[in-house]
Amino acid sequence: MKKVAILGAGLVGSLLSIFLSKRGYQVEVYERRDDPRHKGYVGGRSINLALSDRGWRALEKVGIAEKIKKIAIPMHGRMIHDLQGHLTFQPYGKEGQAIYSVSRALLNIELIDYAEKEEKVKFYFHQRCEDLDLEKKVIYLQDTESQEKSQISADIIFGADGAFSAVRLAMQKTDRFNYAQTYLEYGYKELTIPSLPDGSHALDKNALHIWPRKSFMLIALPNIDGSFTCTLFFPYEGKPSFATLKSSQDVTDFFKATFPDAFSVLPNLVEEFFTNPTSSLVMVKSQPWVYRSGVALIGDAAHAIVPFYGQGMNAGFEDCYVLNEILDKHLDNWEISLQEYQEKRIPDANAIAELALNNFVEMRDLVADEKFLLRKKIEAKMYELYPEKWTPLYSMVTFSPETRYSEALAKGKKQDAIMSEIMQLPHIEHIWEDLVLEEVTRRLS
Amino acid sequence: MKKVAILGAGLVGSLLSIFLSKRGYQVEVYERRDDPRHKGYVGGRSINLALSDRGWRALEKVGIAEKIKKIAIPMHGRMIHDLQGHLTFQPYGKEGQAIYSVSRALLNIELIDYAEKEEKVKFYFHQRCEDLDLEKKVIYLQDTESQEKSQISADIIFGADGAFSAVRLAMQKTDRFNYAQTYLEYGYKELTIPSLPDGSHALDKNALHIWPRKSFMLIALPNIDGSFTCTLFFPYEGKPSFATLKSSQDVTDFFKATFPDAFSVLPNLVEEFFTNPTSSLVMVKSQPWVYRSGVALIGDAAHAIVPFYGQGMNAGFEDCYVLNEILDKHLDNWEISLQEYQEKRIPDANAIAELALNNFVEMRDLVADEKFLLRKKIEAKMYELYPEKWTPLYSMVTFSPETRYSEALAKGKKQDAIMSEIMQLPHIEHIWEDLVLEEVTRRLS
Repeated sequence: MKKVAILGAGLVGSLLSIFLSKRGYQVEVYERRDDPRHKGYVGGRSINLALSDRGWRALEKVGIAEKIKKIAIPMHGRMIHDLQGHLTFQPYGKEGQAIYSVSRALLNIELIDYAEKEEKVKFYFHQRCEDLDLEKKVIYLQDTESQEKSQISADIIFGADGAFSAVRLAMQKTDRFNYAQTYLEYGYKELTIPSLPDGSHALDKNALHIWPRKSFMLIALPNIDGSFTCTLFFPYEGKPSFATLKSSQDVTDFFKATFPDAFSVLPNLVEEFFTNPTSSLVMVKSQPWVYRSGVALIGDAAHAIVPFYGQGMNAGFEDCYVLNEILDKHLDNWEISLQEYQEKRIPDANAIAELALNNFVEMRDLVADEKFLLRKKIEAKMYELYPEKWTPLYSMVTFSPETRYSEALAKGKKQDAIMSEIMQLPHIEHIWEDLVLEEVTRRLS
Repeated sequence: MKKVAILGAGLVGSLLSIFLSKRGYQVEVYERRDDPRHKGYVGGRSINLALSDRGWRALEKVGIAEKIKKIAIPMHGRMIHDLQGHLTFQPYGKEGQAIYSVSRALLNIELIDYAEKEEKVKFYFHQRCEDLDLEKKVIYLQDTESQEKSQISADIIFGADGAFSAVRLAMQKTDRFNYAQTYLEYGYKELTIPSLPDGSHALDKNALHIWPRKSFMLIALPNIDGSFTCTLFFPYEGKPSFATLKSSQDVTDFFKATFPDAFSVLPNLVEEFFTNPTSSLVMVKSQPWVYRSGVALIGDAAHAIVPFYGQGMNAGFEDCYVLNEILDKHLDNWEISLQEYQEKRIPDANAIAELALNNFVEMRDLVADEKFLLRKKIEAKMYELYPEKWTPLYSMVTFSPETRYSEALAKGKKQDAIMSEIMQLPHIEHIWEDLVLEEVTRRLS
């Protein structure tokens, strides 16, 4: 039986270890950081994230979905906060559909715990990958506590080691490896809205809160302890930007004027603003994902994307799900399976990368635009009347795991062209309910 | 006085060392390979290349142009070889204008020799850069002969270490460094047309020979020993491709049918085809080029491009020339100068990257197209009549160093749009000489 080594015990690495142990493989997971269960969680990225249907489908497949539901808070739509603090609610999908706010740390710990119950999975923490021999499939490790060096070999090696993957770095040096890392001109900073004295949430907890301000935005996702984690997505340079908010007074004045209702529930704003890091936003593309028949990239290591569609983790979980299906199909012939895995997933990863980038403009600007909202309303109506014929792009991406990201992107572009024409009809705001919407959906085919 | 360390003693690294020593700096150049003057030249890339006006301008500035002229062969135009071996000559520019074929090895040795005469330049060979501390400006080296490790520090460090730059790799790991490496689906293979028994060239030596075959091509550049170096640019996969030419018979049949006149002057074709490597074609983009005020990328390390415009080396030499001008302007204030250097050169590097990629289609396909040739003829006529008003794109890029690459690209696009309209006039092939060409040029402004 083959031995699989996974570099990275983050969300995707630990889920992958569960999938593969359930297939009967002996799995070893090597993680640079400490065991989050003993020393506290140190994540490289956001505090909480949105889990949606693609993620759930993978979690269900390995039987851990119910457990995770208990630490997840459903968000049924966007709650838009305008400059006066007025609220507008925009549902994400149909009645009952939601995305789920979940703590990265808790989710990761649940996955590691669950994986360790599989007797075939072993985790090794504070093991930094120093180098990799792709030909021989040997990983050179250093224990960051004892400084001891070791080397391990495996039949299959997965790089699930995130956007700054050591496995990918080794692959990057091989001939004909295409690679791009692209940073946005925006950074982000996390801030905390504490729970109320009675432990409840200060804002509606079943929504993803957005303060869209055209060129930037603040968002907030609920945590199960009653708090919210806010994230300010903000330019590095220009006016206003991280560069212009220099003093406590700058920050206070800016938040008071720009996010008045958020300001009133951010008691530690100034301290957090100057203590918490300003993090960058990177997109990673690579191709191929597989070296020969023995080393492969998965999750952010292969395709880090920006967070604006809430799909980064979901895409990584879907990588595991799809790989598992392919291994089923090819009876664990790894050479064929890894080839099919990359052929199938690279176009989908590129599609969600594009969608996520586009969605930044939607979130920070369009959600506050009358015309855009009307457009959404018309699309929602078509979806309600003719669900087989017209599914809004957001629903395809978020609630329809049977639709590939690349299909969703392609269909979305067609729908967008049709809707742009419709929206140019004179007095569309008054006449849209009289349109024969079935006619409109027919133009799709 | 500041000490400058340059990683890489290739064409750009050695020219840069001359520029900087002439400014009075103490310059140390560290090269991974052996000294080409003692152990033979080992180049990572093509055997010969085309030197044109941007390159010459830089060589003139440091006073080495006359020396290099002696080892350079002017090529006044393209010599197109069709399937029957018929020849058509297409001049590159006006009477007297030419690009120059030069051996990479000889040129590099001349530059190193010339640099060493400057007492302030020292070269260190077989020194591999193992790592780099960007903050402290320390380079960790290993002598590949003695295996001895050393570390050196400098006030300014340049990465002139080519497309697979170690300096860039260190910068890639810093926050907000944008980077892309992209490979073509084509590889190339070099072959030799030996000199005739009397030592003369087997083909017209004052032309760049092209066998354009739509989806691929063979080219040949003259060497001063009477030989030509041919390069086959060919797909890795598909039909035909490197993958389909498996046996000696395959290669012989293919060349005989596809490049009949070249076949007759390639006596060692089969042996060379299977002995010489198939090399890949990579494009590299990075941004920024400067880390803080002390480390900078130059040449291929910053912006490797495909060879189809013959501008890779010329662009690298121009980097040196422009940097030198900027240091003049700012009286060697390095902090300001390096900032201006990257702000000015990045758009130009991106422009020549785009132009070079587009030119592949021109070389392998369009140069054999009637309509394309007519278009070139009309443009040449306008250039002749109104040289101030209309300069063909090729001339701007190749013979007009005062025009930045980015300007050439922008102007070229405008000219292209105008020419596309002109070419759609009915019977353009008969009426073009009656067109009021001055009118046409006026549409540019």
